[in-house]
Amino acid sequence: MTKEPILDVAHLAHVEIHSPKVEASVAFFKDIMGMSVAHREGKSVYMRAYEDHYHNTLIITENEEAGLGHLALRATSPQALERRVAAIEEMGCGIGWIDGDIGHGPAYQFHSPDGHKVEIFWDVEYYKAPEEEKTPLLNRPQRRPNYGVPVRRLDHINLLAKETNKNVEFYEEALGFKVRERILAEDDSDIAAWLSVSNLVHDIAIMGDALGEEGRLHHICYWYGFPQHLSDVADLLIERGYEIEAGPGKHGVTQACFLYVVEPGGNRVELFGDPGYQIFDPDWKTVEWKGKDLEKAIIWHGSNLPQEFFEYGTPVKRKTPVKNS
Amino acid sequence: MTKEPILDVAHLAHVEIHSPKVEASVAFFKDIMGMSVAHREGKSVYMRAYEDHYHNTLIITENEEAGLGHLALRATSPQALERRVAAIEEMGCGIGWIDGDIGHGPAYQFHSPDGHKVEIFWDVEYYKAPEEEKTPLLNRPQRRPNYGVPVRRLDHINLLAKETNKNVEFYEEALGFKVRERILAEDDSDIAAWLSVSNLVHDIAIMGDALGEEGRLHHICYWYGFPQHLSDVADLLIERGYEIEAGPGKHGVTQACFLYVVEPGGNRVELFGDPGYQIFDPDWKTVEWKGKDLEKAIIWHGSNLPQEFFEYGTPVKRKTPVKNS
Amino acid sequence: MTKEPILDVAHLAHVEIHSPKVEASVAFFKDIMGMSVAHREGKSVYMRAYEDHYHNTLIITENEEAGLGHLALRATSPQALERRVAAIEEMGCGIGWIDGDIGHGPAYQFHSPDGHKVEIFWDVEYYKAPEEEKTPLLNRPQRRPNYGVPVRRLDHINLLAKETNKNVEFYEEALGFKVRERILAEDDSDIAAWLSVSNLVHDIAIMGDALGEEGRLHHICYWYGFPQHLSDVADLLIERGYEIEAGPGKHGVTQACFLYVVEPGGNRVELFGDPGYQIFDPDWKTVEWKGKDLEKAIIWHGSNLPQEFFEYGTPVKRKTPVKNS
Amino acid sequence: MTKEPILDVAHLAHVEIHSPKVEASVAFFKDIMGMSVAHREGKSVYMRAYEDHYHNTLIITENEEAGLGHLALRATSPQALERRVAAIEEMGCGIGWIDGDIGHGPAYQFHSPDGHKVEIFWDVEYYKAPEEEKTPLLNRPQRRPNYGVPVRRLDHINLLAKETNKNVEFYEEALGFKVRERILAEDDSDIAAWLSVSNLVHDIAIMGDALGEEGRLHHICYWYGFPQHLSDVADLLIERGYEIEAGPGKHGVTQACFLYVVEPGGNRVELFGDPGYQIFDPDWKTVEWKGKDLEKAIIWHGSNLPQEFFEYGTPVKRKTPVKNS
Repeated sequence: MTKEPILDVAHLAHVEIHSPKVEASVAFFKDIMGMSVAHREGKSVYMRAYEDHYHNTLIITENEEAGLGHLALRATSPQALERRVAAIEEMGCGIGWIDGDIGHGPAYQFHSPDGHKVEIFWDVEYYKAPEEEKTPLLNRPQRRPNYGVPVRRLDHINLLAKETNKNVEFYEEALGFKVRERILAEDDSDIAAWLSVSNLVHDIAIMGDALGEEGRLHHICYWYGFPQHLSDVADLLIERGYEIEAGPGKHGVTQACFLYVVEPGGNRVELFGDPGYQIFDPDWKTVEWKGKDLEKAIIWHGSNLPQEFFEYGTPVKRKTPVKNS
Repeated sequence: MTKEPILDVAHLAHVEIHSPKVEASVAFFKDIMGMSVAHREGKSVYMRAYEDHYHNTLIITENEEAGLGHLALRATSPQALERRVAAIEEMGCGIGWIDGDIGHGPAYQFHSPDGHKVEIFWDVEYYKAPEEEKTPLLNRPQRRPNYGVPVRRLDHINLLAKETNKNVEFYEEALGFKVRERILAEDDSDIAAWLSVSNLVHDIAIMGDALGEEGRLHHICYWYGFPQHLSDVADLLIERGYEIEAGPGKHGVTQACFLYVVEPGGNRVELFGDPGYQIFDPDWKTVEWKGKDLEKAIIWHGSNLPQEFFEYGTPVKRKTPVKNS
Repeated sequence: MTKEPILDVAHLAHVEIHSPKVEASVAFFKDIMGMSVAHREGKSVYMRAYEDHYHNTLIITENEEAGLGHLALRATSPQALERRVAAIEEMGCGIGWIDGDIGHGPAYQFHSPDGHKVEIFWDVEYYKAPEEEKTPLLNRPQRRPNYGVPVRRLDHINLLAKETNKNVEFYEEALGFKVRERILAEDDSDIAAWLSVSNLVHDIAIMGDALGEEGRLHHICYWYGFPQHLSDVADLLIERGYEIEAGPGKHGVTQACFLYVVEPGGNRVELFGDPGYQIFDPDWKTVEWKGKDLEKAIIWHGSNLPQEFFEYGTPVKRKTPVKNS
Repeated sequence: MTKEPILDVAHLAHVEIHSPKVEASVAFFKDIMGMSVAHREGKSVYMRAYEDHYHNTLIITENEEAGLGHLALRATSPQALERRVAAIEEMGCGIGWIDGDIGHGPAYQFHSPDGHKVEIFWDVEYYKAPEEEKTPLLNRPQRRPNYGVPVRRLDHINLLAKETNKNVEFYEEALGFKVRERILAEDDSDIAAWLSVSNLVHDIAIMGDALGEEGRLHHICYWYGFPQHLSDVADLLIERGYEIEAGPGKHGVTQACFLYVVEPGGNRVELFGDPGYQIFDPDWKTVEWKGKDLEKAIIWHGSNLPQEFFEYGTPVKRKTPVKNS
């Protein structure tokens, strides 16, 4: 009988990005994407989408270079947290415990093989809306903002990695992620992989870094769920001088309606405009795209991806034209 | 430290409904909802939606009265299956093992407190599309049909129960379901509850049977994910003489865009027209609706629910006007 | 050979409504419907939607009672204007010329049989966006606002009339309106009629006043064109304490996706959420709804219309519960 | 005082295309676009969309080469027809009267300067649905088909011309078309122009033929009105082996959500997926796109147009890869 699956990680809880222009970044996430500031502390601004249930899902921290601060996972139970920490310590890539941060309690931090900083925690603070932001829709933590085209919740993160396979295996073995889809080179090594612990096709994606760099961020993604909102936000972006990198269009991989734009701090942001598809099968066979199938994997229909999409990441390592920043 | 959650059930795998007019029922699911027949055997027809990954998700079995045949859950692993079977046997409500059926292997059957027949299994058969039904969208098991307004996948089942709380507790304790939302009477007993093991707000809903009957079915639900398709299928229904019971409209509970219609065999079918919202928090606090909040729980906006919605179920127990059958 | 059609009126150019709470009305059209203030003068505020090409389309004028100020039509040419003025003068219902108003030149004013004040003009002022509101979408006069759920343009007006037929005939004979659809009583008199000079199904609708009053307003309507925006604006309305009178839902007449809400000044506003259908046939045979067909005329699917919908108009003449005002 | 506008033409009534593979073309318009065959006569098949009010809007005629058969305009009255015929005869480009065809009465035929055959008529036959195709939606001539992703009505035609300006002026002077938008070369000559007599931004578009040919067809266009249907039909096309030339995407010119595909006979077909915008102003100032504004004119967002889009037309005059035919 095969080994039981690891079911110790629940989902991606928040992400921290670095920005050399914090206030411009905050204004972008607020005025265009309809997010709100939940807290400010030191060099960081804590933001949230109106259907995020936790206190915050995005931390923007001042830094000379754009890029990933860290990503945070929530365990499925206190015991699950202990198990994952023990496993990671044994692997030798742990950094150690922190007392917590705005919005959550003690967290164990560690490095992925590529050097991305990750943390995992259990204790969390839920968002308590002020009286005027409450809604009679009791499963929604905060009423829909009437500014921007408001995103609903954090969806996923996409990381660039020097060695894709090594990182994919780490997320599988240390944390129980399952590889839902992958794009394969002719030698069957991973060019990119989409992994999840939830019913989403991906909580985390990992793509080979075309520049051979380590620890870079490709993009973070917030979710609308309705295709119309990509069209609405495209108007807002174009008419306020932002350049859309790609989209609206539809990927074959994940079936996601996408729009990509670089926020003023330099980090790429994806806006996810439909439900894509979801995976309920506990024994999912990884979907593999290769050779002649690849074209449809990347674009099912609509907008193409420019060359920049495959090279640009943060921190910026080569002089690619960085729009909007 | 609190007890660890039970993570042994993955999702709702299929449902069997009874129909006194099997061929009319099959025609409805085919011509209106764009489903296809995967197999016929004895008195049963096995059907599927084009994004269902398993061989079939709907079994329509000839029977004098409409109603539920059984519902089937898939375990998260072979070990998880054994654990659940042991727990259910200990509770004394087991029926026993069957060898399997079209589309899956050995399954353990049991009765819920209300008498609904449930089964749980591990071994499953995936759908293999014939050559002409294959699609370059490799994460889709079968190309989109060009007839009807095709649903994408099975979503959930809604059961009527004589005693709501007793049944809710059974699904929690025996199977690890979590109560995501509930509607409470003035004495805080459950009027209705929405439960899931997945990130969906509900895989199973349980509502008090207004007629005091046992073991009845309120509805099964298939998923579109796009609101436009509810409008499209409404045209098809109205112009082919079906009466829509309610919808399109939007529930507060689950945030679902809904449309309800009774299929020709007499069973109510819901079509789910948007992504609703999803739950990733492993420690979700049940959303409770009561008193003055109830109106928005039932209808957030749009179509009202007629009185029939709260009374009609299958088997039919009182002379409620049954449309379309 | 039949008489040639009158093609002298181009479309509904603007409407003036009365409000006892001007600032609350302006805030509603701005914060919820994303309109902007183009000018303030005396007791009037001139507003516009972002795809209105003229300077303004809505005038809100302070008045003790809510209701219609006037509605304005644009002629198809200066000569056409002269012809219509001559015809109306001959009919004896003219008021006379005014020099113009903010946004247009000389206009001829007159009363419809029911006493609604109407004006017709030729010279118009186009909206010139300030630099920061310009858009590279050159066929759009002003960039999409990033507040509210912004309506795109004025669509139509719906008037209550003591005697429907007399008014319908006036618009046909004096102005060249064509009756596109009508709802007939058993004696074939009009209960309601939808008239247009453009390809829209209606620029003006006329419905019998259930209270037997004269000169009242049923509603004004702004247009989105996309069904999603009705769902978006419904969230905004409900979560800010407004009560939606009806919708989202779909009428059979005009095929319009509708949402009705009463603005704080007391006037009913419709939001039109899809393209409906259009009429290009120059010899259109009026669609007549009667008897058993009526139910589908009023509601094709979704939300019902409450009794209030058939009685409430402005000025308010009976104690109907007026929401949001 | 300026000359009065010519208001003698109502709209584009139907188009005839040539196909070397008539049955494959008919199957495409039926199985993918959900149209139906209204009549067959000689080498021609007469088709219609379900919201076309006339008997037919598309004639597919067997011919060695693909291309335009003719396009047909409906006059606003019998008198208007006489006036236009007199004007065209005076211009010397008339062909003469035909007795009529399936679906309409006597028509006057003529050649545009580029040699496209055009006809104009008054007497028309309305579609009478057989009993089983009738709908309670009385403003819809035929119920929505439950096959394909059904288009609703004919929208416009796009012609290639050797000399754009000469043809644009002909449609203005002979027929009263108004130029709604234009793309200008550096010397201010027209590269392309969008003309209409209705409230649509274009009933007819004329684009310079990059190959310098005369009388070719760029595309015909049918209308959905809802963006979701472009995504739905894209699935149908891709999964049945058709190659989408471009889209879904959004043009700046006309604000149209587009999808382009070449039907099996070789003619390009556009599917129009939203309401675009409409023009009610009788004195519309032509929107002019030039130089740096052009990029947004062609693509507002989403899918790019391939080089083929600017060269391929029918009859095919150079070896461009012709997909799907």
